[in-house]
Amino acid sequence: MENAAEYAARRETQNELVLSQSDLSMKRFFALDHDVYGEGSLSKKAKELMGLVASTVLRCNDCISHHLIESVQQGASEKEIVEALGIALVVGGSITIPHLRHAMSLLGTIERTDEAPSAE
Amino acid sequence: MENAAEYAARRETQNELVLSQSDLSMKRFFALDHDVYGEGSLSKKAKELMGLVASTVLRCNDCISHHLIESVQQGASEKEIVEALGIALVVGGSITIPHLRHAMSLLGTIERTDEAPSAE
Amino acid sequence: MENAAEYAARRETQNELVLSQSDLSMKRFFALDHDVYGEGSLSKKAKELMGLVASTVLRCNDCISHHLIESVQQGASEKEIVEALGIALVVGGSITIPHLRHAMSLLGTIERTDEAPSAE
Amino acid sequence: MENAAEYAARRETQNELVLSQSDLSMKRFFALDHDVYGEGSLSKKAKELMGLVASTVLRCNDCISHHLIESVQQGASEKEIVEALGIALVVGGSITIPHLRHAMSLLGTIERTDEAPSAE
Amino acid sequence: MENAAEYAARRETQNELVLSQSDLSMKRFFALDHDVYGEGSLSKKAKELMGLVASTVLRCNDCISHHLIESVQQGASEKEIVEALGIALVVGGSITIPHLRHAMSLLGTIERTDEAPSAE
Amino acid sequence: MENAAEYAARRETQNELVLSQSDLSMKRFFALDHDVYGEGSLSKKAKELMGLVASTVLRCNDCISHHLIESVQQGASEKEIVEALGIALVVGGSITIPHLRHAMSLLGTIERTDEAPSAE
Repeated sequence: MENAAEYAARRETQNELVLSQSDLSMKRFFALDHDVYGEGSLSKKAKELMGLVASTVLRCNDCISHHLIESVQQGASEKEIVEALGIALVVGGSITIPHLRHAMSLLGTIERTDEAPSAE
Repeated sequence: MENAAEYAARRETQNELVLSQSDLSMKRFFALDHDVYGEGSLSKKAKELMGLVASTVLRCNDCISHHLIESVQQGASEKEIVEALGIALVVGGSITIPHLRHAMSLLGTIERTDEAPSAE
Repeated sequence: MENAAEYAARRETQNELVLSQSDLSMKRFFALDHDVYGEGSLSKKAKELMGLVASTVLRCNDCISHHLIESVQQGASEKEIVEALGIALVVGGSITIPHLRHAMSLLGTIERTDEAPSAE
Repeated sequence: MENAAEYAARRETQNELVLSQSDLSMKRFFALDHDVYGEGSLSKKAKELMGLVASTVLRCNDCISHHLIESVQQGASEKEIVEALGIALVVGGSITIPHLRHAMSLLGTIERTDEAPSAE
Repeated sequence: MENAAEYAARRETQNELVLSQSDLSMKRFFALDHDVYGEGSLSKKAKELMGLVASTVLRCNDCISHHLIESVQQGASEKEIVEALGIALVVGGSITIPHLRHAMSLLGTIERTDEAPSAE
Repeated sequence: MENAAEYAARRETQNELVLSQSDLSMKRFFALDHDVYGEGSLSKKAKELMGLVASTVLRCNDCISHHLIESVQQGASEKEIVEALGIALVVGGSITIPHLRHAMSLLGTIERTDEAPSAE
């Protein structure tokens, strides 16, 4: 399994490939996908955790990896992450369990940065 | 369309019907479904908003109604709700738009209670 | 909410409408959709209960109504139905709960026929 | 069941409600959702039929209604629509059948306009 | 591709990792996920086959592997498994075909144990 | 990642395995799955692009690979493919982005054959 750094590198390379072949609509979608996780009435951390829950109930490992890394970078504690994943598990059912395995395996490989987390 | 109070009443009646016919496993699931939204490292409000996002990307109007009402009761502002729904829209795509219509139509019918909202 | 007889009547009328406008491929699909629930190594009852589980985790009320009625006609007991729905609930998560409400509400309106149930 | 004109009127009213409460990201998503169906290398008709297929496999009646009406307005014949729905049925399985019933019931209520259809 | 024994070993290791990091709600969910497949009005075999059908229409290879192995351990014959997968294919559509490929490839690698199968 | 030729070879081998173990219903489904993409009122190219859109919103990489290869063989241009994927992205949301990465990565490995594409 990829660790967090390997995932992030592959994601960046592949997104560049997609964008190099995309038209204006696709580029706009990617911009929008970035913007909705920005600081607003809800903190970045709260939004990334929402992205993590959404990704887990929709069962997308690549999306889980991304929002898990971002949640940690924004200062989410392990307890907060486990509570968010617990909501996803109950909402989405046992079919999400393989994705919990993915999330928990990746979690140990994420390095916290010095970037100041958003205060919530 | 049902307003918030009508929805809440129907939900309670129908859940009683389900529980009256259910076995122990089903009852335990319902208890668990209540517990994961309780106060923890994350606030009740943050958890209800996560439930709202999960319900929207999974496109379940009854579930949206429930978590929307609970989010308001826990003190979520309209701006916070719109930001949460915006994340759901981008993650889940245009197929969630009919559910935004449902959420926005219900939102105006929810009465805020005096119950002190959880501070986040 | 429709009772079981009203549902069955609407389903028949609407399926006739679909078939009257369909091409050969669509007609073949409908034939296949009938055949897979026929007696085989697995009994009709077991297959209808599988159809019920699949319909519940995929969250399709019309499909649930159909397989619930058929399960009862094939002799499934209420306990067997509740166990099947319990599996669907755990696999599919709380997002299936509105569909349990639908199933449990319909269940009381299904009349058992004299057709000998398949023995399992 | 709503006919095509009633659906279109409700959709417009409800979309106005959503947009009146939405933030910039949501408005941008709605703009994007309009743009991707515009004339391009693929005709509008081809794109609306793709929207119809996507809506059917994702099992969203409101979305089916919209793309079915637009497909007809862009000149799609009944045979083309049935072939598109046939692909959706095979890809998405019997769980889409209730949505075929919806589509076929609505189809008879759509009035063709004089707007010149796109030639494909 | 993993064979059945390799899958079972990885599943056990990863579940231990999840449980070691999980809170009480998550642990309770895992217990519930075990209990619903226990002997009841429906046999263990019937329940595992239902789990297989649910896993296939929800398109989760890890879940398919688990329920396929359990179904075989509980005495399900190849014919019964093929009939169950056939229902899943018709309900869930061609999008499940890659998962049939997974199931059929794994099936040949499962060793039947001496554990007495439940009689149905 | 597999290139297009490796994918096609694996798909053929695995489909043979499935069919060798399947019953009549399963075989009929596979035949139907072939037939709906045949020339009709809609061209083969239009149908394969619809299959591509459906596969993308349902997030099935193996299915995307198949319909992407077929779309190219039927003469779809890169611009047409990008427009089709753009519709899938907007309908299905950011959760489809990992599948765009898959599609765009595979696209460069598909060799166009001399088979005359269908004119549309």
